[in-house]
Amino acid sequence: MSALDRLRADLAGIALAEDAATVRMASRDFFWFSPVLKPELEGKVADLVATPADKDELRRIAAACARHRVPLVIRGGGTGNYGQAVPLAGGVVVDMRQMNRMVFAKPGGARFEAGANMLDIDKLLDPHGQELRFHPSTRAQATIGGFVAGGAAGAGSCTWGQIDNLGAVTALEVMTVEAEPRLIELRGREILKVMHAYGVNGIITEVEVPTAPAHDWAERIVTFDSLTAAARFGQAFMECDGIAKKLVSVHDPRIVPYLKRLAPYLQEGRAFAILMVSEPQADTLDLLIADHKGEVTFRRGAAEAKAVAFGTHKGRGGPGPLYEYTWNHTTLHALKMDPSITYLQLRFPAPNNLALVEWAAKEFEEDVYFHLEFQRREGKVITSSLPLVKYTTQARLEEIMARAAEGGVQPSNAHTFVLNNAGWKRIDAPQPEFKRLADPHGLMNPGKLLGWEAEAQQAAE
Amino acid sequence: MSALDRLRADLAGIALAEDAATVRMASRDFFWFSPVLKPELEGKVADLVATPADKDELRRIAAACARHRVPLVIRGGGTGNYGQAVPLAGGVVVDMRQMNRMVFAKPGGARFEAGANMLDIDKLLDPHGQELRFHPSTRAQATIGGFVAGGAAGAGSCTWGQIDNLGAVTALEVMTVEAEPRLIELRGREILKVMHAYGVNGIITEVEVPTAPAHDWAERIVTFDSLTAAARFGQAFMECDGIAKKLVSVHDPRIVPYLKRLAPYLQEGRAFAILMVSEPQADTLDLLIADHKGEVTFRRGAAEAKAVAFGTHKGRGGPGPLYEYTWNHTTLHALKMDPSITYLQLRFPAPNNLALVEWAAKEFEEDVYFHLEFQRREGKVITSSLPLVKYTTQARLEEIMARAAEGGVQPSNAHTFVLNNAGWKRIDAPQPEFKRLADPHGLMNPGKLLGWEAEAQQAAE
Repeated sequence: MSALDRLRADLAGIALAEDAATVRMASRDFFWFSPVLKPELEGKVADLVATPADKDELRRIAAACARHRVPLVIRGGGTGNYGQAVPLAGGVVVDMRQMNRMVFAKPGGARFEAGANMLDIDKLLDPHGQELRFHPSTRAQATIGGFVAGGAAGAGSCTWGQIDNLGAVTALEVMTVEAEPRLIELRGREILKVMHAYGVNGIITEVEVPTAPAHDWAERIVTFDSLTAAARFGQAFMECDGIAKKLVSVHDPRIVPYLKRLAPYLQEGRAFAILMVSEPQADTLDLLIADHKGEVTFRRGAAEAKAVAFGTHKGRGGPGPLYEYTWNHTTLHALKMDPSITYLQLRFPAPNNLALVEWAAKEFEEDVYFHLEFQRREGKVITSSLPLVKYTTQARLEEIMARAAEGGVQPSNAHTFVLNNAGWKRIDAPQPEFKRLADPHGLMNPGKLLGWEAEAQQAAE
Repeated sequence: MSALDRLRADLAGIALAEDAATVRMASRDFFWFSPVLKPELEGKVADLVATPADKDELRRIAAACARHRVPLVIRGGGTGNYGQAVPLAGGVVVDMRQMNRMVFAKPGGARFEAGANMLDIDKLLDPHGQELRFHPSTRAQATIGGFVAGGAAGAGSCTWGQIDNLGAVTALEVMTVEAEPRLIELRGREILKVMHAYGVNGIITEVEVPTAPAHDWAERIVTFDSLTAAARFGQAFMECDGIAKKLVSVHDPRIVPYLKRLAPYLQEGRAFAILMVSEPQADTLDLLIADHKGEVTFRRGAAEAKAVAFGTHKGRGGPGPLYEYTWNHTTLHALKMDPSITYLQLRFPAPNNLALVEWAAKEFEEDVYFHLEFQRREGKVITSSLPLVKYTTQARLEEIMARAAEGGVQPSNAHTFVLNNAGWKRIDAPQPEFKRLADPHGLMNPGKLLGWEAEAQQAAE
């Protein structure tokens, strides 16, 4: 009797799937955005998919994997771009999406099971006058646990910063992968032990976050003469503390052809901005737009924008929620039209972010099409970008990143599935140490975090 | 029959007061914070006080003043510090506080008559889950019209900036002082024509502002080893986009003796910070406080803090709302104990604000006790200060301001009652031109804005 057979026996009564189609689907994420990761991860599949209905079932799965030394991969919405949800060593994919209850919501804070979908969360918070502070462009697919484990920023980051900022996550509950799984509550900086660790540092079971009092977010598309003009507008809007905002996304004119659903509102050769603004302040925003000689080509009121996002809009036509054309959704739309497209992750730090953007746009003009996602970061306005790249070779990607870094831009490598190489620094909360506690047998997607056993040995010596 | 007699006859049925005590009280504000202004403005009184019940009565007052060429002074809560409400040429004081209706409140925006008290406004908005974005420390006395006409910032400025930022005020309705008064609606940048014009550019009758979705604001007092340590903490808190905040006020240890009601929570020789934080994030704030070796000496939950501010708290003891110890309220408390105290207005711009504070604290150590009011301004963290000054001479005040300016600090002269000299720049919306439209006979507190007639003549030539 194999380890897998013994595991199956232990999991009687829990929803399991082993048919090839289901297992293959549950073993993929959006790693194929990267031509580097694609050949590396293509074909890596789990042996079975388990879908726990609640924490007790999850505990049985974790215990069984530990007892029988079967690898497991925790999966949320499967929207990662670095193969976070791809099983490198087979085993069990644990689909968390049935563990989706709201534990509580009070003004300013709420707690959810990790598998709760982020759009569903906002639907739950809506009657409370609250909302998540930020969500990725994949709001409709992503889970809150997956966002903490593998995400970073998104719509709302222009006001509230990034998921790893102090205060962005209040608490995490984590289940260990042991014969007798324990629950560990992490608060404050302790959460960094599992933050953005691709789900290899224990199973995130609950996420508590501060919520934002909800604004009525109106949507706008605005076109500008050039990327530079649009970027200057974006910066000015960001620096306008008096206008409440949720999305400030600025695009190179060459991105126009890739966003077909927005075609009626875009113009060939003109840069554009995609914006979400507090509706009572949209008139004030118009003044800033006029300052920068922008032309508003699309206006959608907050009620309709919410209905479109919530899937309750009765009208026909019109684009989906505008945030679905920003952040890494831009890459998705471009890839559908042109399979040679890929992307990079670059950050342009304050206070020279606009000058750096201008330099980079010229330096990499040939094969990089910038879209700028404005964020706050440590009290400052900065510019992130997930630019489209006309892919030629991996060497060229690396050359762009290296030259960008020399110029003062901060790249994170999006083309590696190894956590250690992705460019997030975790000096203040050593993740390998926590992994030894939460996953002592090293069963959580082995291969994602390298060297933690070696460090364990050193530490023991 | 004198002009005043004819005016009285025209105002039959409107609440008028002419007894000396009432007129004297209605002719004063807090100009006595300044030993320079005190002798200049002491004893300046109106002839009578008119209290319009509504816009029709106000229109009759404005028309009568215009017809009979009687000066008028518009008065809100009388909390100004530069004699904004002191009649320089007698005439009528118009007490606006009966014109206090809420015109409307919708999510994200509300409109009020100008005489609405700012605390009352927040009580009205409370059931809507909204609040004013910011209010001065004189929230309990100030009117929204007075704040626009003579205020600047306050609690909430750490998140939302300042009253003259684009987007901070949506619209103003202004009544002209003419035989046939007109109502003018100003929106967008047009509002700058009357913003901070001390009420001499037409009568502000309605104010429309964006509101903030309300957080539950908890209060904290925290002590630190030194002003420098406390200032660094303040900066770090400001740079923490992930923690929602309403007040970040940092005080020199030498201010301790002046705040008697806070004595149980302050320590001799230790600097301190007065904070308002979104209650669900207070634990996260504790981490930052610990980083900076702060000691929390006072904690008040959001429900109690609101009850204290709203005057519905049943318990006894404990200080008033903590914002009443910050901004220019600090000066009020100090003056009650030591009549030789006065204050200055200094701004420490980004990005060197902390270094400038440190320089100024040393440079003016002898007679200046800093408290730092952190603000956002144009997307950046800056530090404002209304430092206490042990007053000796006007020349010394001017010396401090001049040397501060040489060092890169930005002073605004708080010791002048003349609008032109106070340091606010109105290049983008020339106030003199609007005065010629809204107050063609120059009846609105003549002497506050100088040279507008001369400019009018030049313009006419």
